[in-house]
Amino acid sequence: MNPPKTDARRHHDPEVRGFASDNYAGAHPEVLAALALANGGHQVAYGEDEYTDHLQGLVRSHFGPTAEAFPVFNGTGANVVALQAVTDRWGAVICAESAHINVDECGAPERVGGLKLLTVPTPDGKLTPELIDRQAYGWDDEHRAMPQVVSLAQATELGTLYTPDEIRTLCEHAHAHGMKVHLDGSRLANAAATLNVPMRTLTNAAGVDILSLGGTKNGALFGEAVVVIDQDAVSHMKHLRKLSMQLASKMRFVSVQLEALLARDLWLRNARHANEMAQRLAEGVRAVHGVEILYPVQANAVFARLPHDVSERLQKRFRFYFWDEAAGDVRWMCAFDTTEEDVDAFVAALKEEMAR
Amino acid sequence: MNPPKTDARRHHDPEVRGFASDNYAGAHPEVLAALALANGGHQVAYGEDEYTDHLQGLVRSHFGPTAEAFPVFNGTGANVVALQAVTDRWGAVICAESAHINVDECGAPERVGGLKLLTVPTPDGKLTPELIDRQAYGWDDEHRAMPQVVSLAQATELGTLYTPDEIRTLCEHAHAHGMKVHLDGSRLANAAATLNVPMRTLTNAAGVDILSLGGTKNGALFGEAVVVIDQDAVSHMKHLRKLSMQLASKMRFVSVQLEALLARDLWLRNARHANEMAQRLAEGVRAVHGVEILYPVQANAVFARLPHDVSERLQKRFRFYFWDEAAGDVRWMCAFDTTEEDVDAFVAALKEEMAR
Amino acid sequence: MNPPKTDARRHHDPEVRGFASDNYAGAHPEVLAALALANGGHQVAYGEDEYTDHLQGLVRSHFGPTAEAFPVFNGTGANVVALQAVTDRWGAVICAESAHINVDECGAPERVGGLKLLTVPTPDGKLTPELIDRQAYGWDDEHRAMPQVVSLAQATELGTLYTPDEIRTLCEHAHAHGMKVHLDGSRLANAAATLNVPMRTLTNAAGVDILSLGGTKNGALFGEAVVVIDQDAVSHMKHLRKLSMQLASKMRFVSVQLEALLARDLWLRNARHANEMAQRLAEGVRAVHGVEILYPVQANAVFARLPHDVSERLQKRFRFYFWDEAAGDVRWMCAFDTTEEDVDAFVAALKEEMAR
Amino acid sequence: MNPPKTDARRHHDPEVRGFASDNYAGAHPEVLAALALANGGHQVAYGEDEYTDHLQGLVRSHFGPTAEAFPVFNGTGANVVALQAVTDRWGAVICAESAHINVDECGAPERVGGLKLLTVPTPDGKLTPELIDRQAYGWDDEHRAMPQVVSLAQATELGTLYTPDEIRTLCEHAHAHGMKVHLDGSRLANAAATLNVPMRTLTNAAGVDILSLGGTKNGALFGEAVVVIDQDAVSHMKHLRKLSMQLASKMRFVSVQLEALLARDLWLRNARHANEMAQRLAEGVRAVHGVEILYPVQANAVFARLPHDVSERLQKRFRFYFWDEAAGDVRWMCAFDTTEEDVDAFVAALKEEMAR
Repeated sequence: MNPPKTDARRHHDPEVRGFASDNYAGAHPEVLAALALANGGHQVAYGEDEYTDHLQGLVRSHFGPTAEAFPVFNGTGANVVALQAVTDRWGAVICAESAHINVDECGAPERVGGLKLLTVPTPDGKLTPELIDRQAYGWDDEHRAMPQVVSLAQATELGTLYTPDEIRTLCEHAHAHGMKVHLDGSRLANAAATLNVPMRTLTNAAGVDILSLGGTKNGALFGEAVVVIDQDAVSHMKHLRKLSMQLASKMRFVSVQLEALLARDLWLRNARHANEMAQRLAEGVRAVHGVEILYPVQANAVFARLPHDVSERLQKRFRFYFWDEAAGDVRWMCAFDTTEEDVDAFVAALKEEMAR
Repeated sequence: MNPPKTDARRHHDPEVRGFASDNYAGAHPEVLAALALANGGHQVAYGEDEYTDHLQGLVRSHFGPTAEAFPVFNGTGANVVALQAVTDRWGAVICAESAHINVDECGAPERVGGLKLLTVPTPDGKLTPELIDRQAYGWDDEHRAMPQVVSLAQATELGTLYTPDEIRTLCEHAHAHGMKVHLDGSRLANAAATLNVPMRTLTNAAGVDILSLGGTKNGALFGEAVVVIDQDAVSHMKHLRKLSMQLASKMRFVSVQLEALLARDLWLRNARHANEMAQRLAEGVRAVHGVEILYPVQANAVFARLPHDVSERLQKRFRFYFWDEAAGDVRWMCAFDTTEEDVDAFVAALKEEMAR
Repeated sequence: MNPPKTDARRHHDPEVRGFASDNYAGAHPEVLAALALANGGHQVAYGEDEYTDHLQGLVRSHFGPTAEAFPVFNGTGANVVALQAVTDRWGAVICAESAHINVDECGAPERVGGLKLLTVPTPDGKLTPELIDRQAYGWDDEHRAMPQVVSLAQATELGTLYTPDEIRTLCEHAHAHGMKVHLDGSRLANAAATLNVPMRTLTNAAGVDILSLGGTKNGALFGEAVVVIDQDAVSHMKHLRKLSMQLASKMRFVSVQLEALLARDLWLRNARHANEMAQRLAEGVRAVHGVEILYPVQANAVFARLPHDVSERLQKRFRFYFWDEAAGDVRWMCAFDTTEEDVDAFVAALKEEMAR
Repeated sequence: MNPPKTDARRHHDPEVRGFASDNYAGAHPEVLAALALANGGHQVAYGEDEYTDHLQGLVRSHFGPTAEAFPVFNGTGANVVALQAVTDRWGAVICAESAHINVDECGAPERVGGLKLLTVPTPDGKLTPELIDRQAYGWDDEHRAMPQVVSLAQATELGTLYTPDEIRTLCEHAHAHGMKVHLDGSRLANAAATLNVPMRTLTNAAGVDILSLGGTKNGALFGEAVVVIDQDAVSHMKHLRKLSMQLASKMRFVSVQLEALLARDLWLRNARHANEMAQRLAEGVRAVHGVEILYPVQANAVFARLPHDVSERLQKRFRFYFWDEAAGDVRWMCAFDTTEEDVDAFVAALKEEMAR
C-alpha cells in the first residue's frame, strides 16, 4: 500500500504536520485500502452500486432505522443540499453568526440554495432557545423570509459541544415552532467521542431531522453524506443532490470511504485521537503564561489569544491560522494523525517564542 | 496494492463489466497508486498544496503557457463553474440540444449558474456556424438572454468528433460575434486519441477559451478540472469554484489523480484503449444483420438501433442503457478497462439474441 | 379627466398610433378614472385594502369559487411567480419553443425561478399531447429536470387559439402524468372574445391549475394577476410574490384597474375591438398580392411575410416589428384603441409600398 | 379629476388616514393628472418613449450629468437591480442589520440577486466606517463572499439621517477598499427636505455610485428608479432590469409619475410636509408623560416606546404597527397627505389612552 518514501513522484514530505486544519491531514490508511477494495469491475454509477447499498445498512445502525444516507462530495455541498431539503423557496435558516454556513461558504447557501440565513451572535458558537427566539418569528409575514429550519453545528465552529439534552431542548423548541432541525456534523464524530455517546444520541434520539455527516475531517480523502432522518425529506434528495452538483458518478468510491470509517470503530478512533491531542495541547498551553485559551476545548480545536508577534514567529515553525487577527486570536487544530510528539514540540516552541 | 479478491469486505465481483457507461468502470491502478503517494503528512488545504502546484506545470505542458487548472469534483461542476466564468448574469449559452449540460444535469446550469441555454437541434451532436447562427442574435435586445458563449463537447454526447479545423472555424465564428467558446472535454482524451493530436490542438490552438477537462471517465476515481485559457476569466475562478460548492478541501487528492493521468501517457493509453474497444465493437456489430449503427463511431461510444425485445434480452446479460427507448436506440460505452473478450462476448450475445 | 391637448407638459402626440405592440397603447379612460376613484385616504398596503378584497369577488365570478387573485406588476412577473407556485426546486416546465417565457423574458424563469424550460417546436405556437410527450418523461431520472408543469399561452405568441376542448385535452394529458397546467393569459381576454366563451371555460372548466391574467395589454396602465385555481398552490403565493419582487405596496392601484376591466364588460369590449381590428387588417392584407398571412388570425395579431424592402419602407410610416427578419416575417398588432381608420390607412400604405 | 365622493364604485372612505405607513397613502393629485397627460396614442414600450426620455433630463438636473435613470416598479426591485449592477456573482453587500434589504424583502436580494448580505448591528440604523470595518475584510479569501458594495439608506429604516459629510466619509471609506456605494433612497426626498440640500448633495456629490430613488412613498401610485451615477454600471442595467422582472412595458406611466414629482418641486413639497407632520407629532408626543421617543426624528417617522396596552387601545382608533412588540416599540409614519388635524387628533387620543 505504501510506496517507498523516496519515490520521485512524491512532491511533499509526509512527515511534516502542523496545526492549521484537520483538512491539512491526508487520509487514513484504512480508508485508502478500502478504495482499492472497491476498485475493479463495473458498478452502477450514481449510487446504485453495492457499496452505497451497503452503506445504508451501516448508516441505519448508527442513526436508526429511518435514516438514509446520500453521499456527497464536500461539507458545503452537504449543508446546502440538506438545508434545501427542509425549506421551501421562501424559507430561511436560523443559525449562529459564527456558523460555517454563514462565514465560510462564500454565500453558497444564498446563491445556490436561495436560502436566507437569519443569524444570531453567540458567546461560544452555541445556540440556545433564547437566541433562536431572536429570529424565530414572523412566519405569516410575507416581507420576512420564513424561518423554517434551525441549523446547529456539533461540534461548533469554535470547538464547543452541545450536550444531548441541549440538542433535545433545541429540537423541541424548533419543532414547537414548526421548524425543522439541521445538524452540521462535519465533526460529529469528535463530539460523540468526547461525550462518549453514540452519534445517534446526538441526532435522531435528540430530534434532529437531517444532518451533514462529515467524512473528510474524520480521515477520508473526501466525501460526506447528507443523512436524512425525517422521511418526508427523502423523496427530494436525489434530485436536489444532482441539481446541486453533488452527485458522484463513481459513487462507490465515496461510499466505501464512509464504510471504512463507520463499519468498525475507525470513525471513533480517529476522532478520539484528535480530541486527545487537542486536550494535550490545551494542557500544555495552559502552562504557558500569557496565552489565554478562549473557549472550552471539547473537540479537536484549541482557540487561543496571545501576542501577535509571538504568533507570527510561531507560524514560521508550524502552520496555523489567525482566527481574529486584530484581537490576536488563533486557532490550533488537531487531526487524526497528529502525534504526541507534534503537540509537545509545538508547546515547546510556543514557550520559546513567548519567552523571547 | 491489490487486496485479496476473496476479501469479505468486497461487495462486488471485480471481474464483471458491461457496456452501460464509462462511469461504471473503477479507477486505473496507477491512479490509485498516486493517491497513496500523495498521502501522509499535512498539505495546505483548498489548493495551495504541492500536488496542485505541480499539476499547473503539467497543464501548461498540455494546454499552453496561459493555461491554469482549477480542479473540481465532477463534470457538471466543471461545466457550470466554467460557463459562469465567461458569462454575465444576463448571459446565455448556445449549445446542441443533445448537450450534456442541457439534458443530463437536472437544470444545474440554470439553477446554480442562472444560465439560459439556447439550444439547437443537430443531426449528430455537432454544432456548425449555421446552427450557431440560429441562436446567435439579439445581443442588444434586453428581452433576450444575451448569447455570450458557445459550448461544444469534444467528443459529443453522441460519440462524434470535431476536427481541429471545425473547432477553429466555430471559435472564429463565435469570437467574431463577441462570444467565448467553452469546450466540454469530459472525453477530450478520447477525441485526441482518435484524431492523433495533442489536446492542445483541440483547445488553445483552435481558439477555445475555457474547458472542462475530464478525469473520471478517463480512469480517475473522481475529479475534473476547469482549464482556463482566456486569462481574463482566471481572476474569478477561485470564488466561483467555492460558491459553486466545487472546492475540495484535501485538493491534493484530486490533483494527484489528474497528475497520474497527465504526467506520462496514461490519459492517452486509457482513451486509446477505450476507443479501440468501441471500434472492435462497432466492427462486430456491423456484421450483425438487423442492427444499425447510428452515428460515426469516433470515440468510445457506439449508438445502435435494434429491435426492442432483442435489447431487453441482451440487457439481462450485459448492462447498457436505452438512449431513445421509443425508437429502439441504445448506447454502448467502452471504458479503459473493457477487454477484447468483453467485446467479443457481447457481440456473440447480440448475434444470439438477434437470431432468436 | 382629459387635460387640454395643447398642454405643454405633454411630450407626445396622442393621435399617433401604430401596429408595433398592444403595449404601445396607453390605458383605457375608464381605467384611469378608476385610479382616481381609488385614490384619497389611507388603505392598508400590500393587498389588505378594500379594492383587492373586492377584486377577489370579481375574480371568483369570472373564474369560479376556488379562484384567488394575486395582483402583480407585469406579465413576466406573473408567469415566474405562477410557475414557481406549481414546481419544486427540481421542476421543469414544458412549453412551446416560441413561448414568451422562453424567448422574451431574458431568462427570468431560469434565473429568478430556477426553472428549466423543456421546449418543443410547434408549427403555430400551440402544444398538442404528442408535442408534450416529446418532453414528458423521466420523472424518476434525477439527471433530468423533472417535468412538473405544462405552460400554455392563450392566445399564443403567434396569435393563435386553443379551443376549449383542446385545452381540456391538454390538461387531462398533463394531469394524467401528474403535471399541473399553467396558462399564460396575457391575452386571455382576446381569446375569450374570439371564441365567445367566458374566460372560465378556457381555464377552470378546462382543467387549468393556475394562470397569469393579463391587464396591461387589455387596457390597464400596468398590472396583471396570478389567478390560482388549484388551492394547494395558494398558501405559497404571498411569500412567492414578495420574494419575486412583484408585491405592490399601494396595491389598491393595481386591483382597481383590474376591477375596472372585469367589473362590467370593459375587458371584453377592449379585446373584441382589438380582435375586430386584426380581422379588418387581415382582410385588407389578403387583398394585397404578394403578402402572405402566416398563421390563422384568431386574436389581435397578424403575422405576415412580405418583401423586406417593402417592410422597411412601411416602417417609416407606421411602427411595427420584424418577427423573423431573415425570413421577411413581420408582426402587426392591434390594440383596444386601434381605429378602423388606422387599419385602412395602414392597408392603403401597404398597397402603395408593394406597388413601388 | 375627482369623482364624486358618493360614487358607488368607491370602496373606501377617502377621509380616513392613519399612521401605519407612508405606503397607506394614495397618490398625489398632480401625479394622477400626469398619468392622464401621458395617456392616449401609442408610445414605444419598454422605455423608448418620450416620457422616459424626458425623465433623463430631469434626473440629470437633480443628480448630475452622468446620472441615468432606469424606472422600475418597486423599492425591492430597485434595490436588487441596483445591487446586482455593482456586484459580481461572488459579491456581498455590507449593510445595517436593520436595513430594509435585510429585514423586509423576504430574502429577494439573496434569492433573486444571489447576494450575500454582511450585516452589522447599529444603534440608530446608521453605518459608520468602524461598523463597516467589522465586515470589510477578506477580499482575497474565496471562502468568504466578497464585500463589493456598502448599502446605506437615507433616510434609514429608523427615520434617522446621515449628514452629507457622513455620506462622503462613508463613500471615501468604501472606495478606499475598492467597494462601491449603493444608497437606498426610498425616502431620499425626506432626507433632502430636512437637510435642506439638493438630492445631489446626498448622492453624487458625496460619492454614491448608484441609488434607488423612491417615488411611491413620495406621492406616486407606484414607481421607483435605479439612478446610476457610476457609468461603468450603466451598460448592464437594461438586461438586469428585465431579467429581474422590473421592466414596465408601458413605461411612460412610470416615468411621467417621476416627472410629476421631479419636474418642479412636488417631490420637495410632499417630503417637507410629511417631515413637518412628523415633527409636529414628535412634539406632541414629547409632552405626553410615559411615552419615550426612541430615535432622532429626522424624516417622516416617529419611533416610540409606550405601554403595550396603551398601544393596543390606540390601534383601535388609528392604524399603526408595532416595531418590536416585546419591547413595546411602535412606529408612527407621516405621509404627504397627513394633516395637522390628523396629528393633533392622534396626540389627543394618545393622551387619553395614557391617562386611562
